[in-house]
Amino acid sequence: MKLYNYFRSSASFRVRIALNLKGLPYEYVPVHIARGEHRQEAWAGALPEGLVPTLELDDGTLLTQSMAIIEYLDETQAGAKLLPSDALGRARVRALSQIVACEIHPINNLRVLKYLVKEFKVEEEPKNEWYRHWVRTGLEAFEKQLAAGPKGRFCYGDTPTLADCCLVPQIFNGQRFNTDLSGLPRTMAAFEACMALEAFQKAQWSACPDAE
Amino acid sequence: MKLYNYFRSSASFRVRIALNLKGLPYEYVPVHIARGEHRQEAWAGALPEGLVPTLELDDGTLLTQSMAIIEYLDETQAGAKLLPSDALGRARVRALSQIVACEIHPINNLRVLKYLVKEFKVEEEPKNEWYRHWVRTGLEAFEKQLAAGPKGRFCYGDTPTLADCCLVPQIFNGQRFNTDLSGLPRTMAAFEACMALEAFQKAQWSACPDAE
Repeated sequence: MKLYNYFRSSASFRVRIALNLKGLPYEYVPVHIARGEHRQEAWAGALPEGLVPTLELDDGTLLTQSMAIIEYLDETQAGAKLLPSDALGRARVRALSQIVACEIHPINNLRVLKYLVKEFKVEEEPKNEWYRHWVRTGLEAFEKQLAAGPKGRFCYGDTPTLADCCLVPQIFNGQRFNTDLSGLPRTMAAFEACMALEAFQKAQWSACPDAE
Repeated sequence: MKLYNYFRSSASFRVRIALNLKGLPYEYVPVHIARGEHRQEAWAGALPEGLVPTLELDDGTLLTQSMAIIEYLDETQAGAKLLPSDALGRARVRALSQIVACEIHPINNLRVLKYLVKEFKVEEEPKNEWYRHWVRTGLEAFEKQLAAGPKGRFCYGDTPTLADCCLVPQIFNGQRFNTDLSGLPRTMAAFEACMALEAFQKAQWSACPDAE
């Protein structure tokens, strides 16, 4: 398998974690999003949507959207299970994942920040405040969901799931923009439990071949 | 089952479509998001995240996040299947759904638009242009994904799936803001096939008990 991705992309980071947790080897293909490489002609075949991550299977099939990729890997590959075996557990893990992937991350995506600067002339500090606002608001909802769910070392239970794959990159992003992460005990405990694992460490920005 | 929702919320609209497609009766509980009812104390028990839709099961269990709710219903309830039976098909349907739910809708959510107006003093027309920009960009990616997939009357195959549940409310939103929807033949053909079905018609804004 080949993963077209970018070290700083948190959606890429999610898939790298999942591949590591499942023990699946893959070829790392760096695409420099910040330089706009994903929109260049050379990548048009491999990246039809112009978004990373894209996972290329051994038969050439291209899969997009990080959560869809991770569920596909979980359904088809051996290794650690990233979704619970019961429907209610899956619903809880997916809902946690979607708080990050549908409530926080899209609003703070690079192209959205660029639009704010280019079209609305938003200055650096108000832009960073916007970033922190959506991270904080989303993580407070995440914390409430964790508090309402069963106790465990990770986001759901005592092994990492799709929800942990989504949470960890978001915490990295939040820290990068100096977001207040206090008062989120369950969330930060899950983050720390994850970061004690090699699968998460090896997926982080600083461990990527294209890291700057 | 009870669905806490708002007629105009497109995430609520997705779940209403799914409940109708599966033929599941439910109690419609209107929560007026635009008036901020979801943040009021009276709703804090039923809406722990302060977001609609929330589905309350008969045993009192609360489920949040529209895609997670729909997958739960599909896994546990009889009726039409909203996810394909094979892993690759599921990956494609989820990816299409996530283009809408992770690439378009969050950026145009009411609370985001309010932030633009309140904090960045964005005027009405640039705000509407922002709205149209993200709908158009996202639907162009959606169209490319459809074109790369198997032919069918709906987004994936000849019966409606989770992807159609996500697409249709997004098209309504796009039309409401006069988004250019030309040059999206597969997307608009799927939309029209959906709107010929009672399950979609009955879920639309104008058919809701709290419609204004």
